[in-house]
Amino acid sequence: MQTMLDQRMQECIQECHRCHDTCMETISHCLELGGKHAEPGHIRLLMDCVEICQTSANFMLRMSDFHGQTCGVCAQICESCADDCDRFGDEMMKQCAEVCRSCARSCHEMAEAV
Amino acid sequence: MQTMLDQRMQECIQECHRCHDTCMETISHCLELGGKHAEPGHIRLLMDCVEICQTSANFMLRMSDFHGQTCGVCAQICESCADDCDRFGDEMMKQCAEVCRSCARSCHEMAEAV
Amino acid sequence: MQTMLDQRMQECIQECHRCHDTCMETISHCLELGGKHAEPGHIRLLMDCVEICQTSANFMLRMSDFHGQTCGVCAQICESCADDCDRFGDEMMKQCAEVCRSCARSCHEMAEAV
Amino acid sequence: MQTMLDQRMQECIQECHRCHDTCMETISHCLELGGKHAEPGHIRLLMDCVEICQTSANFMLRMSDFHGQTCGVCAQICESCADDCDRFGDEMMKQCAEVCRSCARSCHEMAEAV
Repeated sequence: MQTMLDQRMQECIQECHRCHDTCMETISHCLELGGKHAEPGHIRLLMDCVEICQTSANFMLRMSDFHGQTCGVCAQICESCADDCDRFGDEMMKQCAEVCRSCARSCHEMAEAV
Repeated sequence: MQTMLDQRMQECIQECHRCHDTCMETISHCLELGGKHAEPGHIRLLMDCVEICQTSANFMLRMSDFHGQTCGVCAQICESCADDCDRFGDEMMKQCAEVCRSCARSCHEMAEAV
Repeated sequence: MQTMLDQRMQECIQECHRCHDTCMETISHCLELGGKHAEPGHIRLLMDCVEICQTSANFMLRMSDFHGQTCGVCAQICESCADDCDRFGDEMMKQCAEVCRSCARSCHEMAEAV
Repeated sequence: MQTMLDQRMQECIQECHRCHDTCMETISHCLELGGKHAEPGHIRLLMDCVEICQTSANFMLRMSDFHGQTCGVCAQICESCADDCDRFGDEMMKQCAEVCRSCARSCHEMAEAV
């Protein structure tokens, strides 16, 4: 596929998509399990992560002058979301934490590069 | 404010904003209460309603040729969300149901008008 | 990655992501070229396609009861967007048309399956 | 309408909605006019403003711990968008600049308050 975006930005967009999708699925998983998995603060953080990953990907796809700022906030939220998911013991939460951590790293580099 | 949109479309956009905002707040309220308020199906429907109201408003703001289709789907989802909220007895759920019902009506008219 | 979504839904989500990303990049490309590439109706259709692909992917990721409806509207818009892109002769527009067509097919199947 | 949000946050959400709607309509206006109104950088900034206002409003509506960060980025983008719109002489661009400036002020206060 022809693209005007450089390799690193394309990778960061894919990280954001993967983190967005994983957190969205994790919300369903957590609501199904209930209890501490469905605590308002945890679900809210997952919803934050879904939305900022989407916004951040869109800013990169538009090659916006502000993609550094949105990537910066995205890195912070993904990091918090990873920490929050790490509190749980089950496999899906561990995977979600890992995906968030990887996206945070990529967004942090993107924010630094600007 | 200067606008290129006719009166009825402006009103429908405001209905969508109001329904979007109300359902978003209702999600927090339901997660706080827990129990049947936090059932996956109920939260999912509220999230669906938030997103389709946003999409529907954006299609109207762009004066898209497809705003009839998005308004049509929005009307259906708002109607379902209203029915689902009506199952609960508390004041906030009743208000949310009312707001959804009003938005459904407006979107339905908009879909019919195309 | 662990997932609760079946194979076909996962593929449709990926089609929606790809179409969303391609149309977003195509908007920049068209604005750069100007002239008939930057006609309001063409840019609006690309923006419609970006947004409905995002909404449609999110409804599938949430396993929403309404994903058939959003996929149905998405199929229609992707089809129109493909036709509109096919009017142009350059390589990027042809690729965009192809991606839209492929997403339309996948969303149409998903809508039919419900 | 019953709400859990304080007065100032409600006002900021309304500012974000108004700025989102105005910038979205302004995109159509600029594409219709063409020429320097339809320059890629200008349209991209308006699209950035539309999206960050939406994201920022949603973070406040969720009472997210990160609403200060999204409001901060929103204030920056609205400010840039206002400056960019001020370059043009027509009435709609002046109104858009004013709405962006007002939203920037409100989001800046919200970001400072955290």
